[in-house]
Amino acid sequence: MVGRGPRRAGSGRDRDCRRPRMNVPLSGQRLWDSLMEMAKLGGTAKGGCNRQTLTDLDSEGRHLLRRWAEAAGCTLAVDRVGNMTLTRAGRDASRKPVAFGSHLDTQPTGGKFDGILGVLAGLEVLRAVHEAGIVTEAPLMLVNWTNEEGARFSPPMMGSGAAMGIFTEDEVLAKQDPEGKVFGEELARIGWKGGADPGALRDIGAYFELHIEQGKLLEDAGKEIGVVTHALAQNWLEVTVEGEEAHGGSPMAGRRDAMMAAAPLISAIEEIALKAVSASGEPGRATVGRLTVYPDSRNIAPSRIWFSIDTRHGDADLLAKMAEEIRARATAIAAARGVKITVADFWYSPHTPFDPALVGRVRDAAQRLGLPHMDMPTGIGHDAVYVARRVPATMIFCPCHGGISHNEAESITPAWAEAGLRVLADAVLATAGIAKD
Amino acid sequence: MVGRGPRRAGSGRDRDCRRPRMNVPLSGQRLWDSLMEMAKLGGTAKGGCNRQTLTDLDSEGRHLLRRWAEAAGCTLAVDRVGNMTLTRAGRDASRKPVAFGSHLDTQPTGGKFDGILGVLAGLEVLRAVHEAGIVTEAPLMLVNWTNEEGARFSPPMMGSGAAMGIFTEDEVLAKQDPEGKVFGEELARIGWKGGADPGALRDIGAYFELHIEQGKLLEDAGKEIGVVTHALAQNWLEVTVEGEEAHGGSPMAGRRDAMMAAAPLISAIEEIALKAVSASGEPGRATVGRLTVYPDSRNIAPSRIWFSIDTRHGDADLLAKMAEEIRARATAIAAARGVKITVADFWYSPHTPFDPALVGRVRDAAQRLGLPHMDMPTGIGHDAVYVARRVPATMIFCPCHGGISHNEAESITPAWAEAGLRVLADAVLATAGIAKD
Repeated sequence: MVGRGPRRAGSGRDRDCRRPRMNVPLSGQRLWDSLMEMAKLGGTAKGGCNRQTLTDLDSEGRHLLRRWAEAAGCTLAVDRVGNMTLTRAGRDASRKPVAFGSHLDTQPTGGKFDGILGVLAGLEVLRAVHEAGIVTEAPLMLVNWTNEEGARFSPPMMGSGAAMGIFTEDEVLAKQDPEGKVFGEELARIGWKGGADPGALRDIGAYFELHIEQGKLLEDAGKEIGVVTHALAQNWLEVTVEGEEAHGGSPMAGRRDAMMAAAPLISAIEEIALKAVSASGEPGRATVGRLTVYPDSRNIAPSRIWFSIDTRHGDADLLAKMAEEIRARATAIAAARGVKITVADFWYSPHTPFDPALVGRVRDAAQRLGLPHMDMPTGIGHDAVYVARRVPATMIFCPCHGGISHNEAESITPAWAEAGLRVLADAVLATAGIAKD
Repeated sequence: MVGRGPRRAGSGRDRDCRRPRMNVPLSGQRLWDSLMEMAKLGGTAKGGCNRQTLTDLDSEGRHLLRRWAEAAGCTLAVDRVGNMTLTRAGRDASRKPVAFGSHLDTQPTGGKFDGILGVLAGLEVLRAVHEAGIVTEAPLMLVNWTNEEGARFSPPMMGSGAAMGIFTEDEVLAKQDPEGKVFGEELARIGWKGGADPGALRDIGAYFELHIEQGKLLEDAGKEIGVVTHALAQNWLEVTVEGEEAHGGSPMAGRRDAMMAAAPLISAIEEIALKAVSASGEPGRATVGRLTVYPDSRNIAPSRIWFSIDTRHGDADLLAKMAEEIRARATAIAAARGVKITVADFWYSPHTPFDPALVGRVRDAAQRLGLPHMDMPTGIGHDAVYVARRVPATMIFCPCHGGISHNEAESITPAWAEAGLRVLADAVLATAGIAKD
């Protein structure tokens, strides 16, 4: 029997469940080997992975997962947008499944862990439970959501979005990639268009998602587990600055230079985000990730600059205030420089709290297992954020080196993967319950 | 006889030349008609012109100019880079030609006047001299330089650059357009590869170029003639900011965001140019006309920003100081933000004074003709700037509405064109001398 963590106060149920959960023969090595095996499908020379959604490689990855999960006694179902579920029956057929998972698709220059860790850690939970012959009260369900990345078909999180009613099935199936290929046709072509109703996934009892942090907070703090309490509200804007072209040889005095108006606005956006500090001391986040210049000539002062803004905050009111301040600054700069600045809404994602009971089980698991952990929000969209709008859900973060993600250099340690796996298994089994034999 | 302007002090020679020059039957209407006729070759729906260098339309424009100039008694020569000269013999075969002209090629979305005005005003001088049966002492030579615009084959001013030894003939002939077509092959294909040595153009006695200002100084000041005294020194730089990608959901504290480092540097560049004021009260000019973002994703703080800087100043020392200050600011921003900023030299064009005697003749002509005029530099490169490195040269500016150029909306009035024509004719004939009959 594996050594227990420090004894602590908990519900009677938690105490009941401790012993059997500790006996689950989880293998960090098997998880790691599976991660490395999956990474071969689309593996890149730089050690990353290019297994974009609805490609032949995506199909291969799905088949591999199916084979592995079926060998662990699970039953496959596929819905009409390609979401895969692999279910292991529980003792109590009346209980809703306890689900967990993430996504197998990657960015074009993606890594081996973003999404895949959550799926294959879920697989390892099923494998260990299967090997140990454990019967859970509720069914266990591993989910591989279709097109989380949104790299090939935009927007991201399409499978979970369709399941949770964020998007309609029809709009998802009609999306086109940059080459004009249609989502529904590509899904059928690779053989993963199923017959199940995606909406049926709103009927799961709980959802856990283990994911790499994609930030540096855990690594910098020396923690192995992030207990994710909520998802930040996100407000994405688009700015167009319209001035007048002027030759680089003309005096600056008469210019209405769009670039020289955009630059101080971008600096102001950074300043506004850093100053939007909540009562808990949390500042906002702002990113200007895209910018285009017209006419894009070395010796022409630009007449038009377009750029994107991605703002996020744990406090939705402060997020709204950030947008107000950005608009006010834009108005002031436009007036001072004789240019026109338009700040348009592009996309909004509300503040999403995770389920307190599930969050508590994750925190308890980390505590009991003696793993250094901290509460934190996710600043990044995940399938769990959409799921949480309909179903009790939460996430577990594990560190990744330097916060580097969406990048072939993305990396984690086997120990971090195993820590995440153990917390996931513990929280899942605490939620599903172990049937007494 | 056309009425004389106010009598003023001048050289004995100026006084001698006044009468015959005033008798030259210049026609502003014929110049305007020729501009409109030439504009049909490549005319756009928006009233502009797309007659890019070494295209079939360029060839048609050249043939039209040739027919017109030959009808005015001129003799064509074409050099090995396609520069056309149309020469009218003078009385004194020992005197070097007095040359004038500009370019017939346009930007892809160019106007009807940039370059073309200088060529066709020169044609009008030749037509009027021919009609009046005037014999000049020195030969008169109209030049149409190849590829001034640099829009199709970069860099600009290739014909004058090859003639004046700025570029070698071989490098010009080997240039490729974005489709991979080769300059020398295109020149031959359109039938304008001549046998003359471009370097022979270094042996002209003087060069005048009438051009639209491509700025708003003249229009704003209510002047019809710009007496161009010098070309600003130009210093073009390239900046690369290298940080680290961060997801838009990650905290800003740990970021090394290239965009947030580039923005204050761009603002600093503007401030540095405006503060670089010369003893004569002239500030610098700075343009950031191109900027690229990597990886160019809405929710990724960029790891790399590249942008161009075009700086210009009438004072070469202050221009050098501007570059120093830009580098110093880049170093400070890089240190403060943990990014790497590289400021690389891209291109330099020295301060180029125009020939004081020729400048004086232009100023005198405007004065005598009663045309409101002002001294000014050119902040923009022109064939005359390359020519001035080897040969006495200068320029005459006429206003253009709103300073708009390199644009189909480029426009001037017939009166402005005629004012420029009269000053050009006056200065050219004062330089060439009229043979006594």
